[in-house]
Amino acid sequence: MAGLSPEDCALQSMPKASPVKWHLGHVTWFFETFVLSPHVRRYRPYNEAFAHIFNSHFDSLGSRFPRENRGLLSRPSLDDVIAYRARVNEAIVDFLSNRWPLPAGAMDALQLAIQHEQKQQEQILADLKHLWSSNPMRPAYRPMPLQAATAARPLVWFPCAEGLREIGYQGEDFCFDNERPAHRQYVQGFELASRLVTVGEYLDFMDDGGYQRAELWMSDGWSHVRRLGWQAPLYWERQGRKWLQFTLAGQREVDPDEPVCHVSWYEADAYARWAGARLPTEAEWETAANDATQGGNFLESGRLHPSPLSALRADWGPAQLFGDAWEWTSSTHQPYPGYKAQSGPIGEYSSRFMVNQFVLRGGSCATPQSHIRSSYRNFQPPHTRWQFTGIRLARDAR
Amino acid sequence: MAGLSPEDCALQSMPKASPVKWHLGHVTWFFETFVLSPHVRRYRPYNEAFAHIFNSHFDSLGSRFPRENRGLLSRPSLDDVIAYRARVNEAIVDFLSNRWPLPAGAMDALQLAIQHEQKQQEQILADLKHLWSSNPMRPAYRPMPLQAATAARPLVWFPCAEGLREIGYQGEDFCFDNERPAHRQYVQGFELASRLVTVGEYLDFMDDGGYQRAELWMSDGWSHVRRLGWQAPLYWERQGRKWLQFTLAGQREVDPDEPVCHVSWYEADAYARWAGARLPTEAEWETAANDATQGGNFLESGRLHPSPLSALRADWGPAQLFGDAWEWTSSTHQPYPGYKAQSGPIGEYSSRFMVNQFVLRGGSCATPQSHIRSSYRNFQPPHTRWQFTGIRLARDAR
Amino acid sequence: MAGLSPEDCALQSMPKASPVKWHLGHVTWFFETFVLSPHVRRYRPYNEAFAHIFNSHFDSLGSRFPRENRGLLSRPSLDDVIAYRARVNEAIVDFLSNRWPLPAGAMDALQLAIQHEQKQQEQILADLKHLWSSNPMRPAYRPMPLQAATAARPLVWFPCAEGLREIGYQGEDFCFDNERPAHRQYVQGFELASRLVTVGEYLDFMDDGGYQRAELWMSDGWSHVRRLGWQAPLYWERQGRKWLQFTLAGQREVDPDEPVCHVSWYEADAYARWAGARLPTEAEWETAANDATQGGNFLESGRLHPSPLSALRADWGPAQLFGDAWEWTSSTHQPYPGYKAQSGPIGEYSSRFMVNQFVLRGGSCATPQSHIRSSYRNFQPPHTRWQFTGIRLARDAR
Amino acid sequence: MAGLSPEDCALQSMPKASPVKWHLGHVTWFFETFVLSPHVRRYRPYNEAFAHIFNSHFDSLGSRFPRENRGLLSRPSLDDVIAYRARVNEAIVDFLSNRWPLPAGAMDALQLAIQHEQKQQEQILADLKHLWSSNPMRPAYRPMPLQAATAARPLVWFPCAEGLREIGYQGEDFCFDNERPAHRQYVQGFELASRLVTVGEYLDFMDDGGYQRAELWMSDGWSHVRRLGWQAPLYWERQGRKWLQFTLAGQREVDPDEPVCHVSWYEADAYARWAGARLPTEAEWETAANDATQGGNFLESGRLHPSPLSALRADWGPAQLFGDAWEWTSSTHQPYPGYKAQSGPIGEYSSRFMVNQFVLRGGSCATPQSHIRSSYRNFQPPHTRWQFTGIRLARDAR
Repeated sequence: MAGLSPEDCALQSMPKASPVKWHLGHVTWFFETFVLSPHVRRYRPYNEAFAHIFNSHFDSLGSRFPRENRGLLSRPSLDDVIAYRARVNEAIVDFLSNRWPLPAGAMDALQLAIQHEQKQQEQILADLKHLWSSNPMRPAYRPMPLQAATAARPLVWFPCAEGLREIGYQGEDFCFDNERPAHRQYVQGFELASRLVTVGEYLDFMDDGGYQRAELWMSDGWSHVRRLGWQAPLYWERQGRKWLQFTLAGQREVDPDEPVCHVSWYEADAYARWAGARLPTEAEWETAANDATQGGNFLESGRLHPSPLSALRADWGPAQLFGDAWEWTSSTHQPYPGYKAQSGPIGEYSSRFMVNQFVLRGGSCATPQSHIRSSYRNFQPPHTRWQFTGIRLARDAR
Repeated sequence: MAGLSPEDCALQSMPKASPVKWHLGHVTWFFETFVLSPHVRRYRPYNEAFAHIFNSHFDSLGSRFPRENRGLLSRPSLDDVIAYRARVNEAIVDFLSNRWPLPAGAMDALQLAIQHEQKQQEQILADLKHLWSSNPMRPAYRPMPLQAATAARPLVWFPCAEGLREIGYQGEDFCFDNERPAHRQYVQGFELASRLVTVGEYLDFMDDGGYQRAELWMSDGWSHVRRLGWQAPLYWERQGRKWLQFTLAGQREVDPDEPVCHVSWYEADAYARWAGARLPTEAEWETAANDATQGGNFLESGRLHPSPLSALRADWGPAQLFGDAWEWTSSTHQPYPGYKAQSGPIGEYSSRFMVNQFVLRGGSCATPQSHIRSSYRNFQPPHTRWQFTGIRLARDAR
Repeated sequence: MAGLSPEDCALQSMPKASPVKWHLGHVTWFFETFVLSPHVRRYRPYNEAFAHIFNSHFDSLGSRFPRENRGLLSRPSLDDVIAYRARVNEAIVDFLSNRWPLPAGAMDALQLAIQHEQKQQEQILADLKHLWSSNPMRPAYRPMPLQAATAARPLVWFPCAEGLREIGYQGEDFCFDNERPAHRQYVQGFELASRLVTVGEYLDFMDDGGYQRAELWMSDGWSHVRRLGWQAPLYWERQGRKWLQFTLAGQREVDPDEPVCHVSWYEADAYARWAGARLPTEAEWETAANDATQGGNFLESGRLHPSPLSALRADWGPAQLFGDAWEWTSSTHQPYPGYKAQSGPIGEYSSRFMVNQFVLRGGSCATPQSHIRSSYRNFQPPHTRWQFTGIRLARDAR
Repeated sequence: MAGLSPEDCALQSMPKASPVKWHLGHVTWFFETFVLSPHVRRYRPYNEAFAHIFNSHFDSLGSRFPRENRGLLSRPSLDDVIAYRARVNEAIVDFLSNRWPLPAGAMDALQLAIQHEQKQQEQILADLKHLWSSNPMRPAYRPMPLQAATAARPLVWFPCAEGLREIGYQGEDFCFDNERPAHRQYVQGFELASRLVTVGEYLDFMDDGGYQRAELWMSDGWSHVRRLGWQAPLYWERQGRKWLQFTLAGQREVDPDEPVCHVSWYEADAYARWAGARLPTEAEWETAANDATQGGNFLESGRLHPSPLSALRADWGPAQLFGDAWEWTSSTHQPYPGYKAQSGPIGEYSSRFMVNQFVLRGGSCATPQSHIRSSYRNFQPPHTRWQFTGIRLARDAR
């Protein structure tokens, strides 16, 4: 977060977004609450008020400061939060040095806290981008690394036969509880597109009246289009004949060869219908991803924006499944057969968000690479646009 | 609709409900638009303005009068709409007399229009009940037929083994397009409750703090509970120590042996969690229903309210699967694999409502019996309470 | 109310408007509550539920059915309300026949009830017009009486010298409590326009960018213009190059010589500023009206729409002060010095509406002529447009 | 603003409040726009974007960043704004040094800019208090100076005879345009209370059901009470049997001898009715204030909270007319007879806020003393509570 002022870290641009400072306090609180408090003898929380302020949604842990008011908290200041963070870090290091090997429960909690922090890293970037996008001064977080211009290759379809598939996480390492249990699903034959949909393809949809034709849209999606006046992806702005988009490197012209990003599920679904295709189910996506390599344009590239490069590798199967942009699936976020939420507050982590949410797969240009795997299930409501979300097409087997 | 005044038929109690008069005009318009106009040579619509007024949601047929304003239409009067209905009925009879056998397209359209009218019959009762429920004069539509008091039998569980199941409509008769195509699903082993959840069981949930314990609820559901102050099913009202409920026979005390009704998906889901169970998937429900008899407490009984009677037959498998109350499933309303929406306006019938909706199965005490079948998929958003909706429990195989 | 169907009488087009049937029940309840109940020995109210349903805003009389839900009352039916009315009428006639002369309290209450009913007559027409205006079938209440085309005469200014004026009702007959006490005000010299502003003059304002120029508007008014998209008076609709307006005789082209009507105070104020003038204070208006004849285009003309005719008489002073359209003043509705609200529920009649309301003077084409006098103070919030409201200009003495 | 962090200065707690940083930028922009740009040859604005960001409501000066989004502006940072301020200060000093004596227009503009900045000083404190009041950490701006406990003296009434009064600013120095022109009003005989209403008196009103009795309230006020759940003045919080209030020195128990503060006009009006009195008109207040001394508890005392001390001086006439708390009058903010708004953007200063606003008189504990005079007219909508507003009673002459 170099380059961010205290003000950049304190503001909240909408009820669903949070200030950077709050995220920082929240991940710290998460370590404190789930690692230190239960596992370190006589641990005293840093500040009693923080339990109220930095609890996100764990109703079982007591009262919470209202989410939509996080942008009203001028205190604790950024400096206070950084001090909190430093103190908790120390305590964690102490704990690790003195208690090795950790008891199983502590190890699990630590793992979860680390994974949770990775998740928040992406969230911070998405929320900051949203905040800055409305600022007439058009701030930039960092310049975008130079990259040779790359023409997108034509989209091709890779087929996959029908059959019983094993879905869900089967390894021994960490995974979130919604990736479990592994189980069998019968997957019909399907075909998957070789890459993400590009800006150029999406412009064709727009030019063909995509945002004006009710029949392409879910009824709820059409309401959003009309009520909110959607005409293009989020952060796009018309300037004469050109389309500009706001990025974390400032405002720049859209590149037709890049993957389109910041579209809602409604837009992804309408685009797919217009293209004579559909979105993949999460089982289809996972089936394909299990065979794919996991490289891609992640947070580590520093680009913080989708790129056409990863799409070039689609020779033996779909490329670009990981990184660049989260891929909307047609699957709603629901428990897998046999799912059991963990007991205790950690069980609230995702189990209470299994309604009106669609599954997203594969990570984005703002996701830490080590955070992702083929069974990873992200989820968002269908109208969400401020996450780094894109479109992959699928269709029934011919 | 004997016993209803012109005012009863003209009012609209909320944006999602419609006046009885509008329903009557709408089903008439449906016959006119999908049967007469395309298939009767030189057919002239009864009144040009009605295409605008009585179109429900078919964007491809042109402009529509806003749904939330249907209660502002004092004209056409009820008499006008009845005259419209009579005129269109005549034209349909004429058409049938003179064109037998019908061409296939006409036959399909006629079938759809009839099925559509059956659907609206239930909707009229649900909307009327909602309208009257806020009237201090507590109107009654008709007295409830007498029935001997019946004690509910204890709930038992019927197991079903895992395996590939054939789901969806496989017959030759009419079905809605969302029941097709029939296809295979892998269904894990499960158990299904012998009957619907009763009022008495639901009172236990309420007495145990059901509406006060966040951990039992989906996060979205909990927001509804808090924001809207839900404390009991819709139409329930506390009076001293008793709970009264508004029915189409007026206000009466709740009967602990009856199936609970007018609960949202959120409430059904929270109840199931409290009970250590879950809602069935629609595939589970359909698997059980394929083996069940389809008798039950339907519109034809004239009761217009759930009854404990059908639950008594649960000797060889789950009873009460049909009638009494629509059963919320854990499945979202989505296209079956290989689904194709019909072309033309009829394709808008259900295909555009495949987001943020949960599937309901089995029909209710307000559904015409001939309208229902084991593959029938009704759907509603999870906060819906004014339909005749109840709860069936399921759980994983032991 | 000949020609109105039960549906016409039952619907409510917005929270501030009420169904015709409700108005009818309310004026009946007013007679019952303020005349019969207190003054007739052992009087039994017709129906206990009606006290809840037909109470408008008298908090001291107990609970009230919510105003915004009056359009949900399909029961009592129109027939029920007519029967209620007949029964109360009989009781009033009985009372008058047997108790003559009436005790003073009863006489006052009777007077108030009659005046109240006259007020509601205008309200019924305003509410019905609003309801019908959104109906695609464009109903008409009655045809507009023919009238010779009349060219408006040029607007001229009549001066009035400064001095102490006696303001408020000084007679012995009935008046509302907000017209009292008569008292002295110092009125600076001013000039008053000879007639109401015409449609033609208002079109000049519109053509000159009246609805696009922020500097002409109060800040609150400008918010309304932008938020609600006001472009013209209420009920106006552009059709090609013409402006149509909805009237109680159906939709017709606007007549440039007629007084403009259905403008808010914000529009009246902006128009006046544009015209280099201002609205009159109520003291100025009353000073002029005390010298004027009270004839005009009232309810009795059957036109139910402003007319240019009364404006022709402006030879010796301002004309058209009475009838045609209520005249917005620059005065807020506040108690006169020394004002005392009546004790008891009747004291709630206007005393609780003395904030955020502007005074209107002179009556309209929907006001019964005998209801009006020069001291009469009507009042509405500044954004109101569905009353028959027009514009009279004033300016400081030169 | 010593002691404020960048975050304290950047947040916005509600649409009507603004961040401290924005206020600072805005007063700077005001100097730049109205003093430097028109009067300094070849003056180049510091940053073109600031004209958009820091324009408050001057529609005639071009586009404005939306008021309700001022809290989204993390850039310019507090440091940037301080630098802007320093640069403009320098330019002002330069201008004054080189152009003395100033041309009349420049002098007027400079005066207005200084007065404007004084106004904003109070606004900053009111907005900061509102922001901090919702912070669970209960920040304090500065400790409250110690003061001996002071018992309030009994309220007495001072009479004033009826007669023609000269109202409005008659001096030669600066005043806002809404204080002009001076003019005659006929003021009926009245009596004015010797001091502001105290917390103790207000607690009597609360204990007597003040917030539960509809008949004490204006109808609009009652809606606010019910809809927003008002039970006490703003910033009060019940703790067991005590009432606490949030002040700029942190949370502390209420003092019954202090003037009550942070009440809306609706509350002031209801209190007065309950007390058998009324609020004064602004002419009554000004008549009394013209004879009073102007000392009092102003910003300069550093207390930033009302105090009982000034009330002790009421020997020969009403005391505490200046300072402590703004006094709600019963007068709406309207132009005086003969008022002319200044031409140009400065004319927008108060002329466009002459609807739905009540006049407040006398200044508060957050007002700079030199800013106030007996003709000074502050104004706020009647539901406003976050300004330092209190209650003075009046009544008709006996």
